[in-house]
Amino acid sequence: MAEGNKLWGGRFTGSVDPIMEKFNASIHYDKRMWKADIEGSQAYVLALKKAKLISEEEKEDIYEGLEKVKHEWEAKTFEIRPGDEDIHTANERRLKELIGPVGGKLHTGRSRNDQVATDMRLWFRDKTEVLVKHITDLVHVMIDRAEVEIDVLMPGYTHLQRAQPIRWSHWILSYAVMLQRDVERLTQIRERASTLVLGSGALAGNPFDIDRELLRQELGLKRISLNSLDAVSDRDFVAEFLFWASLVGVHLSRWAEDLILYSTKEFGFVTLSDAYSTGSSLMPQKKNSDSLELIRGRSGRLFGNCSAFMMTLKGIPSTYNKDLQEDKEAMFDTFDTLSAILQIATGVLSTLKIHPDTMKSALSPDMLATDIAYYLVRKGLPFREAHGMAGLCVALAEKQNIPVSNLSLKDFHSVSPLFEEDVTKVWDYQNSVEQYTAPGGTAKSSVQQQIISLRTSLGIATKLT
Amino acid sequence: MAEGNKLWGGRFTGSVDPIMEKFNASIHYDKRMWKADIEGSQAYVLALKKAKLISEEEKEDIYEGLEKVKHEWEAKTFEIRPGDEDIHTANERRLKELIGPVGGKLHTGRSRNDQVATDMRLWFRDKTEVLVKHITDLVHVMIDRAEVEIDVLMPGYTHLQRAQPIRWSHWILSYAVMLQRDVERLTQIRERASTLVLGSGALAGNPFDIDRELLRQELGLKRISLNSLDAVSDRDFVAEFLFWASLVGVHLSRWAEDLILYSTKEFGFVTLSDAYSTGSSLMPQKKNSDSLELIRGRSGRLFGNCSAFMMTLKGIPSTYNKDLQEDKEAMFDTFDTLSAILQIATGVLSTLKIHPDTMKSALSPDMLATDIAYYLVRKGLPFREAHGMAGLCVALAEKQNIPVSNLSLKDFHSVSPLFEEDVTKVWDYQNSVEQYTAPGGTAKSSVQQQIISLRTSLGIATKLT
Amino acid sequence: MAEGNKLWGGRFTGSVDPIMEKFNASIHYDKRMWKADIEGSQAYVLALKKAKLISEEEKEDIYEGLEKVKHEWEAKTFEIRPGDEDIHTANERRLKELIGPVGGKLHTGRSRNDQVATDMRLWFRDKTEVLVKHITDLVHVMIDRAEVEIDVLMPGYTHLQRAQPIRWSHWILSYAVMLQRDVERLTQIRERASTLVLGSGALAGNPFDIDRELLRQELGLKRISLNSLDAVSDRDFVAEFLFWASLVGVHLSRWAEDLILYSTKEFGFVTLSDAYSTGSSLMPQKKNSDSLELIRGRSGRLFGNCSAFMMTLKGIPSTYNKDLQEDKEAMFDTFDTLSAILQIATGVLSTLKIHPDTMKSALSPDMLATDIAYYLVRKGLPFREAHGMAGLCVALAEKQNIPVSNLSLKDFHSVSPLFEEDVTKVWDYQNSVEQYTAPGGTAKSSVQQQIISLRTSLGIATKLT
Amino acid sequence: MAEGNKLWGGRFTGSVDPIMEKFNASIHYDKRMWKADIEGSQAYVLALKKAKLISEEEKEDIYEGLEKVKHEWEAKTFEIRPGDEDIHTANERRLKELIGPVGGKLHTGRSRNDQVATDMRLWFRDKTEVLVKHITDLVHVMIDRAEVEIDVLMPGYTHLQRAQPIRWSHWILSYAVMLQRDVERLTQIRERASTLVLGSGALAGNPFDIDRELLRQELGLKRISLNSLDAVSDRDFVAEFLFWASLVGVHLSRWAEDLILYSTKEFGFVTLSDAYSTGSSLMPQKKNSDSLELIRGRSGRLFGNCSAFMMTLKGIPSTYNKDLQEDKEAMFDTFDTLSAILQIATGVLSTLKIHPDTMKSALSPDMLATDIAYYLVRKGLPFREAHGMAGLCVALAEKQNIPVSNLSLKDFHSVSPLFEEDVTKVWDYQNSVEQYTAPGGTAKSSVQQQIISLRTSLGIATKLT
Repeated sequence: MAEGNKLWGGRFTGSVDPIMEKFNASIHYDKRMWKADIEGSQAYVLALKKAKLISEEEKEDIYEGLEKVKHEWEAKTFEIRPGDEDIHTANERRLKELIGPVGGKLHTGRSRNDQVATDMRLWFRDKTEVLVKHITDLVHVMIDRAEVEIDVLMPGYTHLQRAQPIRWSHWILSYAVMLQRDVERLTQIRERASTLVLGSGALAGNPFDIDRELLRQELGLKRISLNSLDAVSDRDFVAEFLFWASLVGVHLSRWAEDLILYSTKEFGFVTLSDAYSTGSSLMPQKKNSDSLELIRGRSGRLFGNCSAFMMTLKGIPSTYNKDLQEDKEAMFDTFDTLSAILQIATGVLSTLKIHPDTMKSALSPDMLATDIAYYLVRKGLPFREAHGMAGLCVALAEKQNIPVSNLSLKDFHSVSPLFEEDVTKVWDYQNSVEQYTAPGGTAKSSVQQQIISLRTSLGIATKLT
Repeated sequence: MAEGNKLWGGRFTGSVDPIMEKFNASIHYDKRMWKADIEGSQAYVLALKKAKLISEEEKEDIYEGLEKVKHEWEAKTFEIRPGDEDIHTANERRLKELIGPVGGKLHTGRSRNDQVATDMRLWFRDKTEVLVKHITDLVHVMIDRAEVEIDVLMPGYTHLQRAQPIRWSHWILSYAVMLQRDVERLTQIRERASTLVLGSGALAGNPFDIDRELLRQELGLKRISLNSLDAVSDRDFVAEFLFWASLVGVHLSRWAEDLILYSTKEFGFVTLSDAYSTGSSLMPQKKNSDSLELIRGRSGRLFGNCSAFMMTLKGIPSTYNKDLQEDKEAMFDTFDTLSAILQIATGVLSTLKIHPDTMKSALSPDMLATDIAYYLVRKGLPFREAHGMAGLCVALAEKQNIPVSNLSLKDFHSVSPLFEEDVTKVWDYQNSVEQYTAPGGTAKSSVQQQIISLRTSLGIATKLT
Repeated sequence: MAEGNKLWGGRFTGSVDPIMEKFNASIHYDKRMWKADIEGSQAYVLALKKAKLISEEEKEDIYEGLEKVKHEWEAKTFEIRPGDEDIHTANERRLKELIGPVGGKLHTGRSRNDQVATDMRLWFRDKTEVLVKHITDLVHVMIDRAEVEIDVLMPGYTHLQRAQPIRWSHWILSYAVMLQRDVERLTQIRERASTLVLGSGALAGNPFDIDRELLRQELGLKRISLNSLDAVSDRDFVAEFLFWASLVGVHLSRWAEDLILYSTKEFGFVTLSDAYSTGSSLMPQKKNSDSLELIRGRSGRLFGNCSAFMMTLKGIPSTYNKDLQEDKEAMFDTFDTLSAILQIATGVLSTLKIHPDTMKSALSPDMLATDIAYYLVRKGLPFREAHGMAGLCVALAEKQNIPVSNLSLKDFHSVSPLFEEDVTKVWDYQNSVEQYTAPGGTAKSSVQQQIISLRTSLGIATKLT
Repeated sequence: MAEGNKLWGGRFTGSVDPIMEKFNASIHYDKRMWKADIEGSQAYVLALKKAKLISEEEKEDIYEGLEKVKHEWEAKTFEIRPGDEDIHTANERRLKELIGPVGGKLHTGRSRNDQVATDMRLWFRDKTEVLVKHITDLVHVMIDRAEVEIDVLMPGYTHLQRAQPIRWSHWILSYAVMLQRDVERLTQIRERASTLVLGSGALAGNPFDIDRELLRQELGLKRISLNSLDAVSDRDFVAEFLFWASLVGVHLSRWAEDLILYSTKEFGFVTLSDAYSTGSSLMPQKKNSDSLELIRGRSGRLFGNCSAFMMTLKGIPSTYNKDLQEDKEAMFDTFDTLSAILQIATGVLSTLKIHPDTMKSALSPDMLATDIAYYLVRKGLPFREAHGMAGLCVALAEKQNIPVSNLSLKDFHSVSPLFEEDVTKVWDYQNSVEQYTAPGGTAKSSVQQQIISLRTSLGIATKLT
């Protein structure tokens, strides 16, 4: 192994299987963490100095050397060499080329175990900020559309059957509310992940009484890990993140499913912009909502990443085991996938054309059957009886093959003497939605209140650090 | 359907397939929420009164009727009847039997959609308290043992290879720290789930301007749902809980895996109490750690519940769909399973016998190879070079087929002239562990500090509500 | 342990934690295998006799004793006692009560490890036959409907957008074909599971040269396990079954999804029988397709069981570990769930009302755009150009706001001079579907051929043994 | 869209979001199927000619043009252009550049829906052959080692506790048997996947009466799809493959787990070749079995791919939906991962050093407790009583703190008068294993028979076509 620069140096005598070499190497994906790796090392240099393990000059040399490595990455001139099996090896190899053997002091008391865990947490902190940005961009579009289109009515569905008239804005905001919860959750995971693990060594801790509080401050983290055995193998934040993203994926999958339905010929409520549709290689008239189908489809992939990592995690004993190397590709793929999904969702929603007339014409008097029951409740009938009578009215209309709104007062009287002339007021969809003034309901005032609440909470949510 | 008491009353004319009836019914499991269902209804009665939908007398009648139903459940005299398809139907049926038609006023403006969601959240709030209790019981045993047995040394493993000497207490506490994070997470999920959804109706909201703030206070919840479409189908808290439990399961699976290993003949570090072992039907000498294997095995089931529900959730459009009925069995089974696992883990740990001498004799001088490198670092050598030289020492000893501690000073000098007489001090395991004084390390002071931190944080964590 | 009847007899001295006892016990679910357990034991008795380990009389006594135990189960008079931790213990305890100490000879050379694996495989063999029956019942209904309703046309969808006219029967049969594959798969799993594992002991094999070929024949199995270490822990067939059921679940979930869509007001193609629908507790006009939603929803649960068991299986070393006890509940729940789903699907389909006129009126001329391209292809134009021109026709019609079939010949000429008077023949949906005569297509002859093929293959598939 | 070469030609007017473009494109991964894509097209050309849709000359032109495209791929000179969103577009674009507009006739009656499904099935057929090869290579190493090392004894474990002495070869072969089942399964999936779907069009079928039997023969497939709606969206074979690979992954994970344990200092049964180990960046003495840990860890990823795709598949309606695009990356990643795992496992096993003396010294007399029971059984005692007495002997020896083999005959008599001088013969491990002569057992003859069986079945399994 004389020619290589593997971290474990000169003991091994056998040669390595090339497939094993490739299987083992992580540089092709973990190079994404180059910046975090350098930042972690730079902080560590300061701590080594404070612990008197290196001199002021050595500190300067190493720190500046790392700065140069960083610039090479930024300038995309960093060259990965054979033997650079991971980002840590690569950066340290380059550092030594630049500053000589003193670079060999950097790793004092540190292990790849605490180093890689540090890198991941720093990377994670930065990228979750990006995701919060993408989500809030989407929520802003939701809120803005909801505000402008607040007067548009549509059928609300349960079980995919027309249930009660609602505001289109109310539908839009139902997803904004889910995403708001998603932001809250991510903020909590991020806070928990913001833990300094550097200074845990391979597993037993750091033997040079390194100042971990200094490290924490330098790296801008919020907590210090309590136990070194746990610290080197704690990937809870990765598992949490993968699940979190799966749940966001589920929310967006349901949203996409709704819009795919609404954009069918049969519903006809919305039309996607050409920018987010594609045609058919065979059928010239087709316009497919591929963007939405991809959003829906890839939510499976997000959960796949979660599932993969949980299974990997489950099967290992204490502390660091190589199995943990599976953490990174899952985390990166989930970040990339979710990042794309969110931006495309924002694009879809901001260019979507709606058809208010079609929505309106999908409202039908039988959707007001509950309102007939409420009418009777307001006349003093217990709800259960009122509900039964409203059912009888619907059945009567079906039998006569007319809309329930066309029943005569006589017909209504045949069901209950409580019906009076004013029953006709029930047949106004606008009246119907305006009943739901309790918080969270579909009345205009209530929807407006939702908009205000969401704006307020977003204002807070975006102020991370 | 004249004979039945199905909520949708008199419209249907067909008869029901018995398999469908059974498939559709949830009473055999959702009856567990009887208490939550009654509490939700009692709060709703107060709100109906405030909204003037019922009189003071009616309020009294319904409230007291519900109280009686509650007593029947408590006394286990409540009888489930054919036609009681779910707990809501059962309770309302019984209420009407007890107080007559006025019971039919209870459901005014309410839907099963917001009712069942309310029940689940109340149930969840109570049961998560139980789980926090079980976890903290386990953590307390961990802390107490760690305190008492702090002087016991054992090999620390990475990759299941002996790595560095650590304290047995340090190992114990590494799991306490994981469980502490689990408590933090559950507390956050619980807070988010503590949201009033009652007053959302079927999907559009509540049309009688019910006072939702009153409902929130009556039910002791922390938030009010923002959007009724979301509220009736928001099962995020269930998904979060199922994942949370899976992660706890993974932690305990790793813990069980460690102890299964430690209780093999080959390791011999611990012996399980007979109360948590079983024998073999064939081999008289066997003593199997069944308790630990069940803990390890059932963590798969916990994730299975998560996986099941995420897949169900993914495939549905907006608002309530019957698919959501799958939420309850998953939640209940996860609660039961985790609850048992935690109690058994506590039992196992509190009755476990340890063998400190066997642990100690598993320590070997080659585990101090890092300390040789540190010795050289302290003499001024860059770590990378020191690491290489320590490796050479290990190789030299292997070649001579002696422990590295038996190398002569001459041997050491053949590797580096920096070695001096004092190299013999390296071969003291006690000295070795005492190096790791940085926070989180395995030095005595550091482990004691972990105990203090955990005790403090548990003090806070258990004060929920 | 004097009072108990646990299989491992007199060695333990500690007492057992009641939660552990409950956690460990499997009798409450594995009693379902009572019949398989007795059959396995009865075969084993014959083999013990042949190996001269028991006398002819002893054989008779034990065999008849087991017969009596079987009758008690059949007559539902078998009483489970405290201490009967699993079905094997229960049956053997009862056997000894009935015939005395000679019953203690039954377990000679056998272990619970090979016993439980045998029971599961026998149970599995019987139950898979039931599932094949349920699937073929469903497929028969599909075929019969497809035959009767072969002349009904409807839009075929891709991306949920109207694509090309197809036969309703063609849609029905697309699911029959999936289920046919499912039957093929199950038959293969069943064949593989039909392996004799009895005679593998705890792990090392059977020391009394038991005649395993005799056992195989007695139990009607197809293969004999090759390696005893594998045999006692091989649960591949369970994992395969759980996945198999998940895939069936996915097929039925997609089928249910289609029908849920087709039964919306917007599509209006089908109406579910009241027997498979339910109403709303709030909205009197609602008729929800609960049966289909439950089928769709529970496919998540089926995959959850697969996921759970795979995770459990992954985390264990060689041979039997107690973790494997998780195999049974997953297998039972999957059987029950799938069994119900299949029967309900059959009920739904056999009572479903279709609306051929609505289907027909959902066909529109733009769905024939491909046929315009084909028209031009038949005139000699390369398809790519023809496809482009058909697109231009569609765009032209959209611009004029008329159906593409209303374009004048002049309009068509403006796109291509190849269009002639006979272009009008394109606008016949019947003509369109009749083009697709290649095998698998939607032409009448082709659909009829599918029916014949399915009938033939079902004839074979149901002849299992 | 004038500048592009998207298949759907000239209808769209909007521009495309670059993120959407990237999200939608599959060329960066589906280019792996370039060969299958060309083969499918070449077969289709022949069928077009037979259906008289193209002339003999046109056939020649297109066929040869495709041949040139193929050569470019082989020579790695094929250039992917912006706008080549998938492999089909890329190949057709290049074809037209090479042979002009006649290339536009190739897609006549074909759709990307049946084209991509064809490509995947051809690719799959070829790659599964590769996997069978890798598995049989591994099994051959297993068999060869088992044959050579048949006389090595070791402890057999259940519950990770020493159970009974077994042959090391018996352990090796237990995994060969699992892999043999895996080959059987893959062969069945492969057969099912070997179905011609070309000729199904977008969904309705092929309108030009293309000869599908000709296509089947040209492509060397075994079946012809029955129903075009199913054919364009049937991804069962992908799901089956992903699960199949997960199960192989589980087998290899358990194998790796065993070897990780056996290579610990505590067990010490085996030593990994340096080629499959790595060292520590911190601890010079460490030698970690990274290869095995990666094998164990990546089995999680394999199941993750299965989980991902099942979830995606579940959430879609009938026929082709863009969600299905998720099929390819999962299939490719699983192929690559499993392919590497299998080769590394073969490398590990073929270079593994075993320590027969350590294995032997891990055998202890208490592991023969079952044999004491068998001794008594052979003297006529019912097994249950014999088992209890053997337990008493073990307990007696434990009490005296001596091995059970050191009990005096008097001690034995105190338990049962049936013990005689010949009890000493029990204490021979060789005798013990040689008892297990029933098929599948650990006796030499039985293990040799396993080797013969496996060799025979492998001979058959590798003759795929």
